[in-house]
Amino acid sequence: MDVSIIGSTGYGGMELVRILHKHPNIRIASLHSDSAAGKRLSEIYPHIGSSSDMVLRPVESDWIIAHSDLVILATPSGVSSRLAQVFVDRNHPIIDLSGDFRFTDEALYERWYKKQSAPCRYLKQFTYQLPEFFKSEMDRPFISNPGCYATCVLLGLAPLVQQQLIEENIIIDAKSGLSGAGKSLSHSSHFVNAHDNMTLYKANQHQHIPEITQQLTAWSGMYDTVQFSTSLIPVSRGIFCTMYVQLKDRDKAGMLHELYQAVYKEKPFVRVQPDGQLPDLKQVAGSNYCDIGLVYNKKTNVVTIVSVIDNLIKGAAGQAVQNLNLFAGYPEASGLDLVAPYF
Amino acid sequence: MDVSIIGSTGYGGMELVRILHKHPNIRIASLHSDSAAGKRLSEIYPHIGSSSDMVLRPVESDWIIAHSDLVILATPSGVSSRLAQVFVDRNHPIIDLSGDFRFTDEALYERWYKKQSAPCRYLKQFTYQLPEFFKSEMDRPFISNPGCYATCVLLGLAPLVQQQLIEENIIIDAKSGLSGAGKSLSHSSHFVNAHDNMTLYKANQHQHIPEITQQLTAWSGMYDTVQFSTSLIPVSRGIFCTMYVQLKDRDKAGMLHELYQAVYKEKPFVRVQPDGQLPDLKQVAGSNYCDIGLVYNKKTNVVTIVSVIDNLIKGAAGQAVQNLNLFAGYPEASGLDLVAPYF
Amino acid sequence: MDVSIIGSTGYGGMELVRILHKHPNIRIASLHSDSAAGKRLSEIYPHIGSSSDMVLRPVESDWIIAHSDLVILATPSGVSSRLAQVFVDRNHPIIDLSGDFRFTDEALYERWYKKQSAPCRYLKQFTYQLPEFFKSEMDRPFISNPGCYATCVLLGLAPLVQQQLIEENIIIDAKSGLSGAGKSLSHSSHFVNAHDNMTLYKANQHQHIPEITQQLTAWSGMYDTVQFSTSLIPVSRGIFCTMYVQLKDRDKAGMLHELYQAVYKEKPFVRVQPDGQLPDLKQVAGSNYCDIGLVYNKKTNVVTIVSVIDNLIKGAAGQAVQNLNLFAGYPEASGLDLVAPYF
Amino acid sequence: MDVSIIGSTGYGGMELVRILHKHPNIRIASLHSDSAAGKRLSEIYPHIGSSSDMVLRPVESDWIIAHSDLVILATPSGVSSRLAQVFVDRNHPIIDLSGDFRFTDEALYERWYKKQSAPCRYLKQFTYQLPEFFKSEMDRPFISNPGCYATCVLLGLAPLVQQQLIEENIIIDAKSGLSGAGKSLSHSSHFVNAHDNMTLYKANQHQHIPEITQQLTAWSGMYDTVQFSTSLIPVSRGIFCTMYVQLKDRDKAGMLHELYQAVYKEKPFVRVQPDGQLPDLKQVAGSNYCDIGLVYNKKTNVVTIVSVIDNLIKGAAGQAVQNLNLFAGYPEASGLDLVAPYF
Repeated sequence: MDVSIIGSTGYGGMELVRILHKHPNIRIASLHSDSAAGKRLSEIYPHIGSSSDMVLRPVESDWIIAHSDLVILATPSGVSSRLAQVFVDRNHPIIDLSGDFRFTDEALYERWYKKQSAPCRYLKQFTYQLPEFFKSEMDRPFISNPGCYATCVLLGLAPLVQQQLIEENIIIDAKSGLSGAGKSLSHSSHFVNAHDNMTLYKANQHQHIPEITQQLTAWSGMYDTVQFSTSLIPVSRGIFCTMYVQLKDRDKAGMLHELYQAVYKEKPFVRVQPDGQLPDLKQVAGSNYCDIGLVYNKKTNVVTIVSVIDNLIKGAAGQAVQNLNLFAGYPEASGLDLVAPYF
Repeated sequence: MDVSIIGSTGYGGMELVRILHKHPNIRIASLHSDSAAGKRLSEIYPHIGSSSDMVLRPVESDWIIAHSDLVILATPSGVSSRLAQVFVDRNHPIIDLSGDFRFTDEALYERWYKKQSAPCRYLKQFTYQLPEFFKSEMDRPFISNPGCYATCVLLGLAPLVQQQLIEENIIIDAKSGLSGAGKSLSHSSHFVNAHDNMTLYKANQHQHIPEITQQLTAWSGMYDTVQFSTSLIPVSRGIFCTMYVQLKDRDKAGMLHELYQAVYKEKPFVRVQPDGQLPDLKQVAGSNYCDIGLVYNKKTNVVTIVSVIDNLIKGAAGQAVQNLNLFAGYPEASGLDLVAPYF
Repeated sequence: MDVSIIGSTGYGGMELVRILHKHPNIRIASLHSDSAAGKRLSEIYPHIGSSSDMVLRPVESDWIIAHSDLVILATPSGVSSRLAQVFVDRNHPIIDLSGDFRFTDEALYERWYKKQSAPCRYLKQFTYQLPEFFKSEMDRPFISNPGCYATCVLLGLAPLVQQQLIEENIIIDAKSGLSGAGKSLSHSSHFVNAHDNMTLYKANQHQHIPEITQQLTAWSGMYDTVQFSTSLIPVSRGIFCTMYVQLKDRDKAGMLHELYQAVYKEKPFVRVQPDGQLPDLKQVAGSNYCDIGLVYNKKTNVVTIVSVIDNLIKGAAGQAVQNLNLFAGYPEASGLDLVAPYF
Repeated sequence: MDVSIIGSTGYGGMELVRILHKHPNIRIASLHSDSAAGKRLSEIYPHIGSSSDMVLRPVESDWIIAHSDLVILATPSGVSSRLAQVFVDRNHPIIDLSGDFRFTDEALYERWYKKQSAPCRYLKQFTYQLPEFFKSEMDRPFISNPGCYATCVLLGLAPLVQQQLIEENIIIDAKSGLSGAGKSLSHSSHFVNAHDNMTLYKANQHQHIPEITQQLTAWSGMYDTVQFSTSLIPVSRGIFCTMYVQLKDRDKAGMLHELYQAVYKEKPFVRVQPDGQLPDLKQVAGSNYCDIGLVYNKKTNVVTIVSVIDNLIKGAAGQAVQNLNLFAGYPEASGLDLVAPYF
C-alpha cells in the first residue's frame, strides 16, 4: 500500500515517517509540506537515516491521488478541515490526525476550537476511530484519529463506563510533556520556562473535553461532562492521566482488575498492569502501548486509574498506523513493534 | 537568640543553615550530626559560603542545652522521636521537622509510619503548628512543623473547609520533586529512573493523609478521609497540588476568590493569585511562599484549586523559621525575604 | 544611592531587581521598559514578592537623570549602544551589561557582533571592568560589565596568564545553560530541542573571543587568539568552562594551587577549591561566586582548569552590583551574600 | 543463530534484549542473571513487550554452551574476566562488553581498573574490535567490544590519526549522560545531584585512556598519551566528545571533510555531517549511529571535531550486535535499523 503524508515536518508527521519506513506492508509514496517543499527531510531533521530520507513535495492533491492509496493528514486543526475536502470529494482515503473531524456538529467544534469548522457534510463522512474499539462493519474510508489526551483517558475509563459501574462525576488530572504542544514557538515551551516547572493550563477549557464526553456517551448513554485538567510537566514525551471515579456498587471493587484484563485481553497495545501496580510514564515513551493500572480506596470508595501513553505514538502517529492497519486489513500491530528505550 | 540544628547534613537541615545564617535576629549556635561530626559543613556541601561554614559536632544534648535557646530537629521520622525526649524532659524548646510529633495518638502514628511512636506523654507536649493559623495563646515550647504535602494542601483548602462550603469528597492530586524524598539513595531517585518520568507512589497510603484529615477535622468537625495521591515529577524542588472539591451551594462560586483574599490578606507568605489565574511551580521554588489559584467549573460544580510551595522551604526549613519567628516574637517574615530565582 | 534599570523585563534585568531590592545601600528608583511600560512587574513575573513590585515606566532619559544617581542598562547588544549616548553626554553614570562598550575599536565590534557600533568617542568613555581586577585609580563613571563567558574564562586563567606561566595555545571548552540566550524565542531554546540534548554553536565565532583576548593581552602582552567553543547543556543556569593549557615550565606544576589561592585570597567571590578538587556547576548556581579548581597531568603537561559561574549573577546582574559597589565605595560584597540552593 | 546473554538486567543487557528480539537472523536463546534468576524480565522492567519477555536463568555455563551458539557478556568489569574463562576453555564464542579483555597486558589493566586482571593467556585470545575497522582475516571467536567513550573518540579521530595529519597533543573533552554509570546507586547519580548540574570526574584517570592510546598507536605508531576529560551532563543517554587537534600541515585543512567522507563512505553507522555542520547529541540517541562533524580554525590551526553516540547502543549493545553481525557473516546493519526518536 502506498501512503502519502501531508505535514511531515511536524512532530506527528516525522514520527509517521520513522514508523512507516519500517512497516512491512506499507511504502511511503511521498511527503508533503508547502513550507519545506524542495528540501530533503534530512536538511530539517538530521537524525533520520538515509533509508528514510526523501525530498518534500508541495501539497498537491492531484499528484497525491494519482500516486498513493491513502493520505495521512498530520496537519494542525484548522488546516486539515480545508485540505481534506478535495480528498473526500474524490473518495481518496484519509486518516486525519487533527481535531477537525472528530465531531459531526459544526457548532460544537467551533465553540471548543475557536476555528471555523469544515462543512457538516464533510464531518459526517468521517469515523472517529479508537482502534481498540474498532467495529469491523465500518467501511468508510475517512478516519479521524483520536486526540492524545482523549486516547489516554478513554482507554483508561472504557471498562468502567461501558459496564456502567461508576458515578457520573469523573475527575481527570492529565499531565503532558512539551511535545504535545508541537514545534511552534511560545513562551510556555521555552526551555527556561518549562524546565523545573509545572503549569495547569486551559482549566475546564481543553478542546478534548467534548471528544471525551462524546465517546463516553456513545458507550453508556448521556455523559454530560467530565472534570478534566491538563498540566505541563518537564518531559518531552508522554501523557500521564490520573483519574478518580466512584463506584456505584462497592462490592464490585474486587472484580475490577479482572474486568480490565478481560476487556483488553486481545488488544495488543493495552497492557493492564499486575494487580495493585501502577505504570510509570517512561515505560510507554517511545512505544505504541497504553499501560493502565488501578487501585481502590475503601475509605473513599474512589478508584484511582493511571493511564499512560506516548503522546506522539499511541496519541498520534502510532495510533494512525494502527488505524491504517485495521483499514487495510493488515495485522493490527504490523509495523508497531516498538519497545520503550526506558533508560 | 541562639539556635542549634540537629541533622544539618540533610536537605532540610542544610536549608535551615542557608536561611538562618542571614536571619537578623538569630545566631546559629551549633550544627550537629553524629555521622559527620568533626567535619566542616563545606567538606560535605561545597556550595555554602565561608560565612556560613561551621564544624559539625556530635549530637550531645547537654552541650546543646547549655549553648542554645532552642533546638531544631531536622532529623527523619523515627529519629526525632528518640532525640526529642531529653529536650522535653529538660524543657528546652524544640521545633521538629519530622512526622514524629504530629499526632497525639501513638497507634495512629504507628499505623501510617510503620515505626515505633514516641510515648504518648511526649506527643501531648507538642503543638502541631501551621503558622498561618497560629493561635497566640499557645505558649508551649514544643512545636511540630507540618509536613510538606500537608502544608500545601491545608493552605489550599483552609478557606473552603473552615467556612464549610464544600462537600466531603475532596480529591487531591499532589506532585512532588525529588528532593522531597531526601538524600538517601534509592532506585526511584536514580537520575535515569526519575528523569523524563512520572510515577504515582504510595497510592492511598501516604503518611500525610492522617495529618491532613486531623487538621481538616479541627477546622470543621469530623473529616473522615481524603482521597490523596502523590506523584513524582522530574524537578528537584517543589510541590504542585491540584485539588478538586464540590460546592455545597453553587451560588457561592462567585465569592470564592474574595474569600481566599480575605483569609490570606494579612499572611505574608500566602499569595492568592489574581482572579482566574493559577500559579506555576517555579514561581515559589526557592521562596517561602505558598501561591494559590482557583477556578470554578459551572458544568461540574467543581472548584479546582492549585496550591504550590517549595517543599524544602515552605514545606520544611522556611516554615520552621516562620514558626520560630512566631515563637520568639520576631516579625513573622524575619529572615524569610526570599524570592524565587524563576529562570 | 538611587538606581534606575532599563530593560528590567529580561532575565538580567529581573535578576538585578531581585538582588537590588535587598541591597542595604541602594534603592531602586525606577524600572524602565518601552514594551511593558505601564504594567506592574508582577504582571509579567508572578514570582516576585510584593516588596519588589513596581510599575514599569517607559525609557525616558530626562526622567531617569532627574530621579536616579546611576542607570544600569540591562538591554541587549545593539540597544545599549544607542541608549547610552545621552547619559554619557550628560555625564550620568552607567553600568552597561551588553557587549556594546567592551571594545574601543568600532571595527572590531562590528566584525564580531554584526551590528553597528556606537561611535568611537563613546566607546572610549567606558571602562571594561572585571571587578576582581579593579584598579582603584579609575574614576570614570561609565562601566562596561564583562560578558558571562568572558568572566568565567578570565577568572579561571588570570593567575596563569598574568604570571606568564603557560604556552599561548589555550583551549577553552565552555558550556552554558539556556538562560544565557535570553528570553526571546528560537528553535534552539524550545524545550523539546534543548532537553536531553547538547549542541556546540558558533564554533570559532563567538563574540566573547575578542573580549577574552583583549583582556589576556592587557595582562601579558600580545595574546593573538584563543581556541574557544561554546555548547548548550540542558540546564537553565550556569556556565561550566573547561580549559586546557600547557605549562612553559613543568617544575611550576607544584605551586599552581598555591598561586591561585594567593591571587584570590582577598576576593570575596572567587573560591579556589581544595587542592585536587574540581567544582560542579550547581555549587554556584544562584550565587555570585566563581569557583575554580585545577589538576595537572604530568604525562601531557596539561593543566585542566574548571571554572564555574551563574551566568545571570556573576555573569551579569551580580557582577554589575559588584561593580556598582566598587564604584560607589560600598563593601564589594554588599547585597551579594547569596548562597546556591544546591538541591 | 542462538545467542545467550549474561547480565541481562543491566542497562546494556536490557538494550541487547530490545535490539535482538527484532533481529531477523538471531534468536535469544536465554537470559542469565544470578541475582534475578527465576524472575520474568517484565517483573524487573515493565516497559518490555510480551514478545520479548523471558524467564531469567542463573549463570550456568554448561547449559549455555549446550543451548546457544554464542554468549554475550553484558557484565561489569571484574565479573566478565571471571565468567569468560570457561567459555574460552571450551571454545564457545564470546562478545564481552566490559573492559576486561581490551588489553593484553595484565599490569596495564590492573593499573587503570584497580581490579585483578584475567590471566594473560585469556587476554591474548580476545580481539579488540571496533567494527568500522574490522579486519576480515580475523577469525578468533572472542571479541572485546570497545568502551563507549573510546568508540566515540576513536571514530572521531581515526581519519586524522591514520593519515598522520595531526600533532600528538590531542585534547578530548567528553561528556556523558547518567546511564553511562550504570544502574547501581551512588550520590553522583541521585537525581537531585545530577539534575541541573555538570561535573568533571576522574580527571586524567579514566580507564578508557589506555584503550584510546592503544588503538591510536595501532593506527599510527607510538601514541604515548591523550589529554582526556569526562564530565557528566544531565541527560540519560549519549556521549558528546569535543576534540581539539592541531594540523601538521595547514594546507591540508581544505581536504579534511572530504577525507572523513571517504573513510566512512561504506560504513553504515558513521554519518559525516555536511561540511561546516556539527551534530547535536539527540540526533543519535536511540540509534546505532556515530555522527561526526568538524570545523577548522585558521587563527589557531585547531580542528574541532564533534563526535556523538548513544552510549548504550553504539557505545555498548548496538555495537555488540554490529560485531556479532560481522562475526556471523550477516549484513553489518542487520537488526540495527534504529532511528533516534529526536523529540
